[in-house]
Amino acid sequence: MDDKVIITCAVTGGMTVPAQSKAIPITVEQIVEEGVRAVEAGASVLHVHVREEDTGRPVADLELFDRVLRDLKANTEAVLQPTTGGGRGMTVQDRGAVLRFRPEMATFNAGSFNFGLFPVAARDLPFRDWERDYLEGTRDYIFKNTFADMTYMAGLMEESETRPEIEVYDVGHLYNLQQLVKEAILEPPFNIQFVLGVLGANAAEPDQLVHMLRTAQRLFGDAFTWSAAGVGYPAEFNMVALSLMLGGNVRVGLEDNLRVRRREPAQSNVDLVEKAVSLAAMFDREPATPQEARQRLCLKGADAVAF
Amino acid sequence: MDDKVIITCAVTGGMTVPAQSKAIPITVEQIVEEGVRAVEAGASVLHVHVREEDTGRPVADLELFDRVLRDLKANTEAVLQPTTGGGRGMTVQDRGAVLRFRPEMATFNAGSFNFGLFPVAARDLPFRDWERDYLEGTRDYIFKNTFADMTYMAGLMEESETRPEIEVYDVGHLYNLQQLVKEAILEPPFNIQFVLGVLGANAAEPDQLVHMLRTAQRLFGDAFTWSAAGVGYPAEFNMVALSLMLGGNVRVGLEDNLRVRRREPAQSNVDLVEKAVSLAAMFDREPATPQEARQRLCLKGADAVAF
Amino acid sequence: MDDKVIITCAVTGGMTVPAQSKAIPITVEQIVEEGVRAVEAGASVLHVHVREEDTGRPVADLELFDRVLRDLKANTEAVLQPTTGGGRGMTVQDRGAVLRFRPEMATFNAGSFNFGLFPVAARDLPFRDWERDYLEGTRDYIFKNTFADMTYMAGLMEESETRPEIEVYDVGHLYNLQQLVKEAILEPPFNIQFVLGVLGANAAEPDQLVHMLRTAQRLFGDAFTWSAAGVGYPAEFNMVALSLMLGGNVRVGLEDNLRVRRREPAQSNVDLVEKAVSLAAMFDREPATPQEARQRLCLKGADAVAF
Amino acid sequence: MDDKVIITCAVTGGMTVPAQSKAIPITVEQIVEEGVRAVEAGASVLHVHVREEDTGRPVADLELFDRVLRDLKANTEAVLQPTTGGGRGMTVQDRGAVLRFRPEMATFNAGSFNFGLFPVAARDLPFRDWERDYLEGTRDYIFKNTFADMTYMAGLMEESETRPEIEVYDVGHLYNLQQLVKEAILEPPFNIQFVLGVLGANAAEPDQLVHMLRTAQRLFGDAFTWSAAGVGYPAEFNMVALSLMLGGNVRVGLEDNLRVRRREPAQSNVDLVEKAVSLAAMFDREPATPQEARQRLCLKGADAVAF
Repeated sequence: MDDKVIITCAVTGGMTVPAQSKAIPITVEQIVEEGVRAVEAGASVLHVHVREEDTGRPVADLELFDRVLRDLKANTEAVLQPTTGGGRGMTVQDRGAVLRFRPEMATFNAGSFNFGLFPVAARDLPFRDWERDYLEGTRDYIFKNTFADMTYMAGLMEESETRPEIEVYDVGHLYNLQQLVKEAILEPPFNIQFVLGVLGANAAEPDQLVHMLRTAQRLFGDAFTWSAAGVGYPAEFNMVALSLMLGGNVRVGLEDNLRVRRREPAQSNVDLVEKAVSLAAMFDREPATPQEARQRLCLKGADAVAF
Repeated sequence: MDDKVIITCAVTGGMTVPAQSKAIPITVEQIVEEGVRAVEAGASVLHVHVREEDTGRPVADLELFDRVLRDLKANTEAVLQPTTGGGRGMTVQDRGAVLRFRPEMATFNAGSFNFGLFPVAARDLPFRDWERDYLEGTRDYIFKNTFADMTYMAGLMEESETRPEIEVYDVGHLYNLQQLVKEAILEPPFNIQFVLGVLGANAAEPDQLVHMLRTAQRLFGDAFTWSAAGVGYPAEFNMVALSLMLGGNVRVGLEDNLRVRRREPAQSNVDLVEKAVSLAAMFDREPATPQEARQRLCLKGADAVAF
Repeated sequence: MDDKVIITCAVTGGMTVPAQSKAIPITVEQIVEEGVRAVEAGASVLHVHVREEDTGRPVADLELFDRVLRDLKANTEAVLQPTTGGGRGMTVQDRGAVLRFRPEMATFNAGSFNFGLFPVAARDLPFRDWERDYLEGTRDYIFKNTFADMTYMAGLMEESETRPEIEVYDVGHLYNLQQLVKEAILEPPFNIQFVLGVLGANAAEPDQLVHMLRTAQRLFGDAFTWSAAGVGYPAEFNMVALSLMLGGNVRVGLEDNLRVRRREPAQSNVDLVEKAVSLAAMFDREPATPQEARQRLCLKGADAVAF
Repeated sequence: MDDKVIITCAVTGGMTVPAQSKAIPITVEQIVEEGVRAVEAGASVLHVHVREEDTGRPVADLELFDRVLRDLKANTEAVLQPTTGGGRGMTVQDRGAVLRFRPEMATFNAGSFNFGLFPVAARDLPFRDWERDYLEGTRDYIFKNTFADMTYMAGLMEESETRPEIEVYDVGHLYNLQQLVKEAILEPPFNIQFVLGVLGANAAEPDQLVHMLRTAQRLFGDAFTWSAAGVGYPAEFNMVALSLMLGGNVRVGLEDNLRVRRREPAQSNVDLVEKAVSLAAMFDREPATPQEARQRLCLKGADAVAF
């Protein structure tokens, strides 16, 4: 087993609204600062979303992406991995536009499913109207990644020499991937991220991660690296620990989870990365450096991006 | 273990086009005839779709449903279970309209996912234009069942005293169901149909059925009856055999599969039902009668429908 | 998937006593006759035990083995696979002595475990004293296959150019095998028989066969052929059907199971082989001939035996 | 999920020899001191073996047990759980004799299997002759727990009002337990310890613990508490972490594992207990006190023992 572990930090994401935690970075400056600190704490990959600076609403604004990516690049060696997931109401073209920055890596979502954030809206939190609407609106929301969308996105990624991090949220997404291989739309080896715990897809239980990993191995042999991200608490750290013992990489961050302990909110992504690093030490693994991450993930290097 | 097995026959469905097999029933008369014969062969539940009579295109036309349901009722004792799945381009309202007939049971789809029929379009078959378009179009198709849709459909079913047969296509759909229970939108005991083998969702492998069944049992204890449907060949009969040995019910039919042996097309749904009956005998199970099916599935009875 | 299936018939075994069924062959003549008829019905491998001709007690008598093997060889082309399992009270030397006949294949038991037949003694059957004692005695019986025993047996098999059929009864036995590989005592590719349903080892449930198969694949890749044997009814045919759909071979026979249907005793091994053949046809597989079996199992051929 | 975790410390065991680590406690005084310190570090149950004081050879000497149990009782509140596993060459009577001390709890081994320590003998360690012989001897050793043995031991435990901690080492042992329930030899609720990683039985992989836990739940519902012990490193802490996230209890100690990090030998059981406590904190669980352990495990209390 590799004694290094690639820690991805998903610093802000699009699954939460500001009312849920003051720690969620909103502005370009905050996102960059959180990113830089997360890398100092042990992350070697930063998963990047942007938000409207005045409201905190998740968006796929290219100018914001441009600023965040440039500033992060100027201040950290980490792999910068923008999302192509976007948010409610965006087309796949909107979502893929970020690839014009030719990042080393970007997320590639391997299937469609309900993406339900609405249970959060029922909590007693100081929501602004748009926030409650945003969450409640997911009752009727599908995270849309049809085969046509995936084909389009794979094309953009090939063109921009961006390596996909393939997000699988349920077992069927692995079979989608098999289909894309059959059609020569994607080709192994893959970098797979098991994102578990989204309402609408598979749960972040040990049974499910083990089952999905073994299904992936039956389909693709060992022609993939993998990581796991658990959404919610304690899911995030359960998936981290299980992944560490199974030889996988890990993702943490305020995108996925807002607590560092059952009754203790995270003050920063740093809290989450530090907990992942502490857990890694328990399993004799230490954080990979950004350069080690690049090598293991077969990336083209920070010089080859367009930002 | 119950020594009876409820055999559902999905006589025509909306996942195939006429060019794939002459055996697929198209007209009201054909659908009814196939249904009646399937029941004579051992089916106790008929899963009902309708098609445009001149083209064979899957539709959710209420007049066609009305004719099929009435004629079937006049000619068989079987439980008549219309789909609420509809087809490409239909709204959830279109799909749910069939509940005005207040059937004893109807399908309830427990999640959204890509529903990919497009690999069929690559085969050398005498497709008409609409057929190839219909299949190819699924590259960009999502079978849409958001939480809002499911809530709407559950409401209609409650109102029409129609028992949902809950179709789960991937592991996450079981957790969707758990969420619907939390919100009191649905209530156990359930009738679950594991529909495996759709491109876009989970595969029809023994590992997957066993895993999904055990996940369901961890979530709902034994508060459900269940059945399995495998899409494609040999998936259909693999799922039948596995279900028979695990104590489940089974679904077969030209909706899901067009072959009775590897190199032998089914001439009729009867071939598929007969093969299921033969398999059942191997596992000491015999077809439940329609009345036995009603009792086990907790249905209101054929007198209580509005057709 | 191979469209042939190797059907092994375990014609008499050492796990039952005559009072359990008149169909169990006892004398050399009966065993040979059953063997020949099983091959005519579709078996290509005969798993051979012998019994005292006057009492029916399972023994490892070399003269009886000699007669059975010679007579079977004279009357059938099938692969003859004597047991090295022996019975209560035998040493590993007693059990391995049959290898002097240099058979093409013999069973190799991959671990120690309680082998409990005693629940049978509680049934209301016309037991003779030794029979009840034999069954009851298994309360304190271990089927002994220590690492030393396995090393000894592997040596004998190498010497006699006999290919081991590796019987695994529980998950740990697969890890035993891994240890034997590490020590170069055995070498892949293997022929594995999953024998499930013995009281004292793993159960003949679909979950268990799938789990053991996947564990074996993780350990040995695809460097093995495999078969499954379920002990008891309906275990035998559940394992047959599951194995057929998963691409494995199958074992049936009066050694493992005495019933052909839930309430119908088998009159002969032929009933069991015929049911396996019928099931195989359901999964598009037909019985391998003895020569096809030899080729797939990598055997040296019937000419190279010493009987 | 319970926010307390019962940490059992297996302070010396019978699976290792002194040459493997100077930290292994040998004398009564050392065992007691290690036990007391382990409890101070967070253990609430001490699993007790004894060794010959001059050689360190594992034995089941009643005088040594008497001294260890008395001294531990005098110096700690922990639950004292003697082994009934004994060592090579002991009869079940020898092994069960410790029950005359009427402990609150003792181990109950739920099946027979090869117990292979011999790979250790190949290491370059300063073995004394008996040590190498002891390890090498396990090539031909079975840990014998026949149904008769289990029945005998269950009788002794009932008589001494000692609660069995049921050690299961492979999947089949759970079905053994089911048989003992059928015969009214044992009765739920149970306290199950999943001991994984012994050569001869199941491995300490996440797949195996999850599979065995789910098998146990299918057999016994939730009528058991459970704990996991992984033999070797990193198995011990993998099983601890997985158990913590799944709601189980944990066992650590020099009986099972000699390292606290990959390249760092444990200096004492304290190192291992402390690492378990640190891991527990990561999963929001804190060590149960001895009194909390008694309550959760349904024990009779320290006053009711005969030492």
